[in-house]
Amino acid sequence: MSPEPVLIAGKWRESERTGTFQAANPATGEFLPPLYPVSSWSDCEAALNSAHAAFLEMLSMPGERIANFLEAFAVKIEERSDALVELAHLETALPKTPRLAGAELPRTTSQLRQAAAAARSGGWRNPVIDTTNNIRACFGPIGPVVVFGPNNFPFAFGSASGGDFAAAIAAGNPVIAKANSSHPGTTKLFAEAAHLAAEETGMPAGIVQLIYRTSHSIGEQLVTDERIGATGYTGSRSAGLALKQAADGAGKPIYLELSSVNPVVFLPHALDEKGDALAEEFSGSCLMGTGQFCTNPGMVLLIDGEAAERFITDITRRFEGAAVGTLLSDSVRKSLHESHRILKEAGAQILCGTGPGSGAGCCVANTLFRVSGNAFLRDPETMQTEAFGNSSLIVTASSLKQAAAILEHLEGNLTGSIYSSACGKDDVAYDLLAPILRQKVGRLLNDKMPTGVAVSPAMNHGGPYPATGHPGFTAVGIPAAMTRFAMLQSYDNVRPHRLPEILRDDYSGPAQRLIDGTWT
Amino acid sequence: MSPEPVLIAGKWRESERTGTFQAANPATGEFLPPLYPVSSWSDCEAALNSAHAAFLEMLSMPGERIANFLEAFAVKIEERSDALVELAHLETALPKTPRLAGAELPRTTSQLRQAAAAARSGGWRNPVIDTTNNIRACFGPIGPVVVFGPNNFPFAFGSASGGDFAAAIAAGNPVIAKANSSHPGTTKLFAEAAHLAAEETGMPAGIVQLIYRTSHSIGEQLVTDERIGATGYTGSRSAGLALKQAADGAGKPIYLELSSVNPVVFLPHALDEKGDALAEEFSGSCLMGTGQFCTNPGMVLLIDGEAAERFITDITRRFEGAAVGTLLSDSVRKSLHESHRILKEAGAQILCGTGPGSGAGCCVANTLFRVSGNAFLRDPETMQTEAFGNSSLIVTASSLKQAAAILEHLEGNLTGSIYSSACGKDDVAYDLLAPILRQKVGRLLNDKMPTGVAVSPAMNHGGPYPATGHPGFTAVGIPAAMTRFAMLQSYDNVRPHRLPEILRDDYSGPAQRLIDGTWT
Repeated sequence: MSPEPVLIAGKWRESERTGTFQAANPATGEFLPPLYPVSSWSDCEAALNSAHAAFLEMLSMPGERIANFLEAFAVKIEERSDALVELAHLETALPKTPRLAGAELPRTTSQLRQAAAAARSGGWRNPVIDTTNNIRACFGPIGPVVVFGPNNFPFAFGSASGGDFAAAIAAGNPVIAKANSSHPGTTKLFAEAAHLAAEETGMPAGIVQLIYRTSHSIGEQLVTDERIGATGYTGSRSAGLALKQAADGAGKPIYLELSSVNPVVFLPHALDEKGDALAEEFSGSCLMGTGQFCTNPGMVLLIDGEAAERFITDITRRFEGAAVGTLLSDSVRKSLHESHRILKEAGAQILCGTGPGSGAGCCVANTLFRVSGNAFLRDPETMQTEAFGNSSLIVTASSLKQAAAILEHLEGNLTGSIYSSACGKDDVAYDLLAPILRQKVGRLLNDKMPTGVAVSPAMNHGGPYPATGHPGFTAVGIPAAMTRFAMLQSYDNVRPHRLPEILRDDYSGPAQRLIDGTWT
Repeated sequence: MSPEPVLIAGKWRESERTGTFQAANPATGEFLPPLYPVSSWSDCEAALNSAHAAFLEMLSMPGERIANFLEAFAVKIEERSDALVELAHLETALPKTPRLAGAELPRTTSQLRQAAAAARSGGWRNPVIDTTNNIRACFGPIGPVVVFGPNNFPFAFGSASGGDFAAAIAAGNPVIAKANSSHPGTTKLFAEAAHLAAEETGMPAGIVQLIYRTSHSIGEQLVTDERIGATGYTGSRSAGLALKQAADGAGKPIYLELSSVNPVVFLPHALDEKGDALAEEFSGSCLMGTGQFCTNPGMVLLIDGEAAERFITDITRRFEGAAVGTLLSDSVRKSLHESHRILKEAGAQILCGTGPGSGAGCCVANTLFRVSGNAFLRDPETMQTEAFGNSSLIVTASSLKQAAAILEHLEGNLTGSIYSSACGKDDVAYDLLAPILRQKVGRLLNDKMPTGVAVSPAMNHGGPYPATGHPGFTAVGIPAAMTRFAMLQSYDNVRPHRLPEILRDDYSGPAQRLIDGTWT
């Protein structure tokens, strides 16, 4: 059986490979038949040349044409939705409905259409005009973007379909997609649809290319190449940090989403008022999708007391009673066990779980750990080990003051939530804790679990290191996410007819522009 | 004689030092009397604690109060202008007038007042509101900022007075200023004025602190410390890259301005039409301030021909005839000689200069190198060695096609300029070259030298690596420069009275807000 082809320079062709790999069905543990190639540098070199050529062609392309491509791609995805859902389910064990077909697929096409609208309007370019000095500035495309997609969202964060892909293309950059090794077939289906859409809408050959895997060193060479503008990466912290070090050394922007425990604080009076409902809300959020969300509530902060004890008893019972979901892959299962081992060794007490799960295929029992505030503060770094999956760590602080100290020791996170009394009884505690938590997270929530990530212009799916590599950017939300793949371009005394249309005096398009200090 | 005190936690106190150093008068080569301490980690630790405490206090401070501080500081600078100009002249040999008193000092106070206005209005926070999802986002302060100022702008880029300082404070962050070793006394005068202004306006003790120098390893420890939000650095490439590597490794944003040769392309018909005027314009720009601008035109690209030869003869004559200015320090003189040695060894031909200069103190003769396009393309990296000072390299391309190839091989630069015929005769050449140059520079100019850097919201004083560390940000221009020292903060379902004022429904302030897709 010959390996699946790569998509390079507009052709599906045999990879110049250094090896092959297979994906597995996590629900059965069995390997799936197709062989996928591990690309050599030769594949990357060809992809880089084609991406560079495509980029030069896209530089003079109106946003309208890029929008047409993105919209045609969205239609092709919808035409193939059954096949995509079927194969993604096989490769990831994520439920076909509602998850893949009802939620993730529409989210993906909606993101592509929002990106298309942004490309069409040009508003993402943030045009600023200073007529006195005749200086004008806007964002412009940065160059070809390499996208490394994660295992947990094969559609909405997929390297040839998801948020980074849509944002990079809409900002005028070709994409070299590196499939996630756990769902290469799904990524290939997307790349096929994108390729057809690109041909239909007259895009350059290198606008979308696909490879499946490389060695670590070739991956590092790829993100540092002079033909590359930037990289988007969502995945494990260790692999991401190796890429970050390489890209940083070459001065190439890299946007990473690495890890996050998403602390949730339940203040005492909120627990008093509706502890039962909150236990249900938390358990549902933490076990949904077998806990495999970037924004999964992996740490709960409580303040010692009766309400806290009742809450802990309640969620433990719920975790024990809930069905155990299948994990995305055997390596997710292994790393969840490894995180559990680390937390246990550091002194966390097992409330439930950590053993083999009762679900199908790759699984681990629904797990809750508990640790005192004192123990947490003895080794806060280890206690923040991300346990990606159906698992959470409950920290019980001896006092409000200790709760504040615990938050002071948090690393950067994507989200932080605080539940407080509906009638103001927790307000003193909130006012102490919220400012500390605010600086540690990209998104602060009240009375709400962090797992839903709306595709909104006001969303920040980002946060301080190590949640991401830079706290100024978001990976979700059009148009904000597009500025990651843009460079700031100022035009000083440039003759009017040579300016980008959006900076000209006679511009009549839809984008709002900041002219001499006023949005117009 | 005891060393000058450092400013830590609101007190001028003796440094816990590991050594001392003196500044020198570059016009005479003689050391100036004051001794300045080299700070140990103990100084840094105390400064970090005080900055952290100040930051927490500033988090709840209205922009109005920060604006009052910045404006009071500007007044104090004006009250001390004679002393500042006198001492800066002694430490840098920059002319008192018009440069220091007439240009740089008013620029500095104007930047502070622009930053104050931005802090007051809050518009820099870019408020975005999504009422459907009840998600709201804006930029917020990132945390204490360390500022390393350069040698060449003791006021406008000074670590306790300049653009990074103003942007960091206006965004709500305390500053730890690290003086440039060539003008520590000037920096101290600014810190004294800032300290008085801070006391008068009721700012926390740690809002502005000053140290003069540390070892390299302690500098690296400082920019990676968990209490630090970000770093601003303008200076030499080697020292900057060491700090960048450290900060990157810790996931701490660092904004660097490192080096730039600022290519200027003179197209043939422009030279035909007004070669003489252009020779005057170029020579003036390149020798102004003894060439010690970040945006100095250090590389000229011509296309072989009679007009190019006439131009070269003309500028060589002008460089030979022009007065030779004093350089900022003996180390600037040494590194200029070193760059000349590198260019010469790489095969560049000396048109004039490279020897000792006829000016006062530290100086090097006005220098022009010449190299063919072929020779440039044999070793483009070496040929782009920055020769910081009164020096430029002329590259003569054999054809338009070769000129394009040369631009393709450029590293990232702050600026790129193209001069072309007034009547359209160079338009084919422009259309080929400009798109290539556009992606290599932060600011593209037409018919204009790059040395003027207006403080405008449309300015981009930035560019791709190695001009800076990230092509999405500018160091000059309020409010754009402030977002470097900000983090993106999203509020999801946060109760109305807990939102920052600028995100509330009943906000009535001056900032324009993007509400459900429309600027309001």
